[in-house]
Amino acid sequence: MVNYPDFVELKEVGPRDGLQNETKWIPTEDKVAWIDMLSNSGVKEIEYSSFVNPKMIPALSDAREVGRRIQRNPEVFYSALVPNLKGLEYALETGIDGASVFMSVSETHNMRNINKTLDQTFPVLEKVISEAKQAGKRVTGYVSTVFDCPYEGRIDPEQVVRVCERLMEAGADELSLGDTIGTAVPSQVERLLESMIALYPKEKLIMHFHDTRGMAIANIMTSLQQGVTRFDTSIGGLGGCPYAPGAAGNVATNDVLYLLHGLGVNTGINEEKIRDASFFIQNKLGVKLPSKSLACHQHTA
Amino acid sequence: MVNYPDFVELKEVGPRDGLQNETKWIPTEDKVAWIDMLSNSGVKEIEYSSFVNPKMIPALSDAREVGRRIQRNPEVFYSALVPNLKGLEYALETGIDGASVFMSVSETHNMRNINKTLDQTFPVLEKVISEAKQAGKRVTGYVSTVFDCPYEGRIDPEQVVRVCERLMEAGADELSLGDTIGTAVPSQVERLLESMIALYPKEKLIMHFHDTRGMAIANIMTSLQQGVTRFDTSIGGLGGCPYAPGAAGNVATNDVLYLLHGLGVNTGINEEKIRDASFFIQNKLGVKLPSKSLACHQHTA
Repeated sequence: MVNYPDFVELKEVGPRDGLQNETKWIPTEDKVAWIDMLSNSGVKEIEYSSFVNPKMIPALSDAREVGRRIQRNPEVFYSALVPNLKGLEYALETGIDGASVFMSVSETHNMRNINKTLDQTFPVLEKVISEAKQAGKRVTGYVSTVFDCPYEGRIDPEQVVRVCERLMEAGADELSLGDTIGTAVPSQVERLLESMIALYPKEKLIMHFHDTRGMAIANIMTSLQQGVTRFDTSIGGLGGCPYAPGAAGNVATNDVLYLLHGLGVNTGINEEKIRDASFFIQNKLGVKLPSKSLACHQHTA
Repeated sequence: MVNYPDFVELKEVGPRDGLQNETKWIPTEDKVAWIDMLSNSGVKEIEYSSFVNPKMIPALSDAREVGRRIQRNPEVFYSALVPNLKGLEYALETGIDGASVFMSVSETHNMRNINKTLDQTFPVLEKVISEAKQAGKRVTGYVSTVFDCPYEGRIDPEQVVRVCERLMEAGADELSLGDTIGTAVPSQVERLLESMIALYPKEKLIMHFHDTRGMAIANIMTSLQQGVTRFDTSIGGLGGCPYAPGAAGNVATNDVLYLLHGLGVNTGINEEKIRDASFFIQNKLGVKLPSKSLACHQHTA
């Protein structure tokens, strides 16, 4: 029999990665009420917003107000996405336990996403990481398109390793490896994780899957089998890909909980509270969220 | 690294399991055109209809006409569902290469589904199996609710073994084990397959997953790791559960092909032809099919 870990830690990224591409504006008070529901679900970490230029991500332009108004549960770790020193300054003023910096391993994707080459990105992130660490914050390095890039195709694991090494040398505490366009299959996950686990303790590796082609749960299974115990998930599966509207985005917290609890793995998270919070944001957005386990409950509820 | 098989055989069950709960009538000529598309996709087996009482499954009441009008590709194995001797008689007249009999391992589910106890069902199926074998046909035993029953809850693998043994003793050539309500997680699959593989050659075992909670691809991965190489799939994910309309039904052929081809496993099936056949039936039904890989192509196409 396959052995599964006793405990798996999920970071709830719905309020950031989930909402960032939504065209419908969610009023600040609704975001706050929703994040407060998440804070009481048993989840250990919430990425509550993104301190990027509000012109780039209008859906999250109220990051500072959200950060000020949410009720901080002392048992929850609150992080936020910060792209640069200005973003970090706002995030520190507003209140964060951890900062997430991000870049792509693909030159083309990085250029299209933040208009910088990889070599232009490193010095920016190195400064952010350094300042965040000086402020006593944990830093997560989000590394995107680690399997496939929409422009460059298949990514060499060695290229992922090169980017990760730079971020870790700069002081990042941990790495979140993103299947940004949701194309990976388990053999790719296995291959990349073998390279990564040879370099870093498993506890420092977080897998961030998108379920665009329905592979995310299988990819999580493969990661678990490799000893990874940390995953980014988004409530209800919130978070469509801007390049494929209507297609699924982040893997759904609900489906991952169904898997993990079914396997007998503890998460500390209450599934019903996640379901309630899913229905809350679904009603605000007015669209059906893609999580399949949630859809089952919509009909039996 | 995990080793995957060189070849996996998919049986396309869309025309039977996929359509059987649809309330919209698909005209016979459309069914025929659609099955003919599937016959030219490279798929090795198609379950083209069900010879049950048309009052029970009105969507498939034209089984005989469909069977007479489809173009038989000599490289494709054509099977159909037969519940009893009358159904077998019609199926043999119409033309089948194989017959599928079915029953549940759960007393309550079997009673609700076909209004017989398990002990009342065996003699009926034994006669059907015997007659089908005398007619030179391969017989598949569909065994449903092998993991969980909507009425009885968790099913003991020993109960599955008991039902399977009766069917195999009666002459069935192979077994299709159904996660009818789509609740299983990989540890359940692993446990049941350990019992089954101890009794039967892996080649005689077919896994039939529903993706109601998004676990099907992970369950297929687990089955592959146990050495199973045969799966029932439904084009586009066609086949909603009657107890949860709108929830996903059978695992989508498209998503399974994405997984298998991504893993480097050969299926003989052309993904584009499956996509074309998916769009064909989707247009006829007028509803968006649940396959995620298909949804990606709807937006990039």
